Amino acid sequence: MNTQLDWFKILTDCKNNVEDTIKPHLKTLNEPQPDLGEGAGGDAMKPIDLAAEKAIVNTLQDHGISFSLISEESGFEKYGNTPEECYVTIDPIDGTTNLLRGLPFYASSIAISRKPFIAEVYAALVTDLYHDITYMAQKNKGAYRDGERIKPSQISNLQEAVIGMDLNSYKVAEIAPKLTDLIQQTRHIRHYGANALELCYVANGLTDAFVDIRGKLRTTDAAAGFLIVKEAGGLITDINNQSVNVKLDPRQSLNFVASGNAKIHNTILGLVKS
Amino acid sequence: MNTQLDWFKILTDCKNNVEDTIKPHLKTLNEPQPDLGEGAGGDAMKPIDLAAEKAIVNTLQDHGISFSLISEESGFEKYGNTPEECYVTIDPIDGTTNLLRGLPFYASSIAISRKPFIAEVYAALVTDLYHDITYMAQKNKGAYRDGERIKPSQISNLQEAVIGMDLNSYKVAEIAPKLTDLIQQTRHIRHYGANALELCYVANGLTDAFVDIRGKLRTTDAAAGFLIVKEAGGLITDINNQSVNVKLDPRQSLNFVASGNAKIHNTILGLVKS
Repeated sequence: MNTQLDWFKILTDCKNNVEDTIKPHLKTLNEPQPDLGEGAGGDAMKPIDLAAEKAIVNTLQDHGISFSLISEESGFEKYGNTPEECYVTIDPIDGTTNLLRGLPFYASSIAISRKPFIAEVYAALVTDLYHDITYMAQKNKGAYRDGERIKPSQISNLQEAVIGMDLNSYKVAEIAPKLTDLIQQTRHIRHYGANALELCYVANGLTDAFVDIRGKLRTTDAAAGFLIVKEAGGLITDINNQSVNVKLDPRQSLNFVASGNAKIHNTILGLVKS
Repeated sequence: MNTQLDWFKILTDCKNNVEDTIKPHLKTLNEPQPDLGEGAGGDAMKPIDLAAEKAIVNTLQDHGISFSLISEESGFEKYGNTPEECYVTIDPIDGTTNLLRGLPFYASSIAISRKPFIAEVYAALVTDLYHDITYMAQKNKGAYRDGERIKPSQISNLQEAVIGMDLNSYKVAEIAPKLTDLIQQTRHIRHYGANALELCYVANGLTDAFVDIRGKLRTTDAAAGFLIVKEAGGLITDINNQSVNVKLDPRQSLNFVASGNAKIHNTILGLVKS
């Protein structure tokens, strides 16, 4: 039974293989890497993303795991004889644009679940590939950064808070007015361009919340980060304070607010217009 | 005469002293560092900023330089017998909030000028204190990252471009509508929370532009980055395509668009509403 597997070990092996796979492709860091950008299938199928996906798939197969893959890159694939036992939702590289431009924010995201729904994820890894920092969680076992237990921030005052926010959308004229009151009262808004990692920042207390109400973020980006935030002790709901349990599917998008604590979560929900 | 001094050497010494000064204060990286946040004078006078300022001042004095200091932290100060010969405009730590929260983006910024105006800056340093990457420029001598000449990006298409944008303002309801058309057409908006460093990203081609029209950014944050962008080959103007030459003064604010090339600069100016 897959839940009996040592997922921290397996996910760590996946991460190590992703790192070993992409490192030879990277030139010096903090420099544009345009050569990696020319994929056969355009933006969504960059060769470095596919290489990272293959590293994850191979590692799981080496561990004898049968699974259904749900990937940002290749969509749905089945591996082994009992692929319905285990769903593996991945974004092999979250923040590919950052990687290609030399911006030091990109991550690999892997979520394991028994069913293809985001609330069913029971083991998760997000690894900051630039700084080599790994966030992991297992259901009811807490969240960890490089093996050390993490917890979110208790900051609740928007004047002190740092809030991640993704506004990248051609629908910004619709979305920005919903967020104006929140931006107005928040002193420090950030967007680092790797949403899986920005969820881990909430889990680890580096930021106090992350808000993405564009209706555009894919479950492949968020599946692992959701468990890591929740296991650290943070909260994630939609803007109506309802729990988020969408299907794990590369075409499925989601809206959410992730916060370090209930007080700031309620403050944010009170300011975001629906 | 100060222009005959080896400013690359002197600024490098300043940077090394800032690094040596702040390193003992930092606990493990990528973790919140709340103890450093309790300054006597509140937000603007955090002890780590003051320690970094002192490291810069001491280094300049050790080099026997007489100068007028224009600092984010302590305002105006005069040092030596001929302080009107040389103006030193600094933000000892740009991105203090990031530093205190463990977010890996903060820099030290130092600009040298003969007169207290931003267009008069003739030597500049911005150092990424987390990743230990140093950007420097001297007037008519080009811009460098860790000693290697840098140039900005030639990307002009907003679908490919990565644009830094600072929206942190209580006046966001006024500012956001001016930027809606630009955000709508840009696929990758970022805000890392250390504006001096984000200017160097434009100079180095990691991003394609940086837009700050809040009327809030201080000259102490931007003085060094401006020269680095220009010497790399990028452009900086206000939103009416006029050159920016404000007084170097901690109370002086500025609006600008910094771009890697003329084509994207014109595209951006065409989309930003005045």
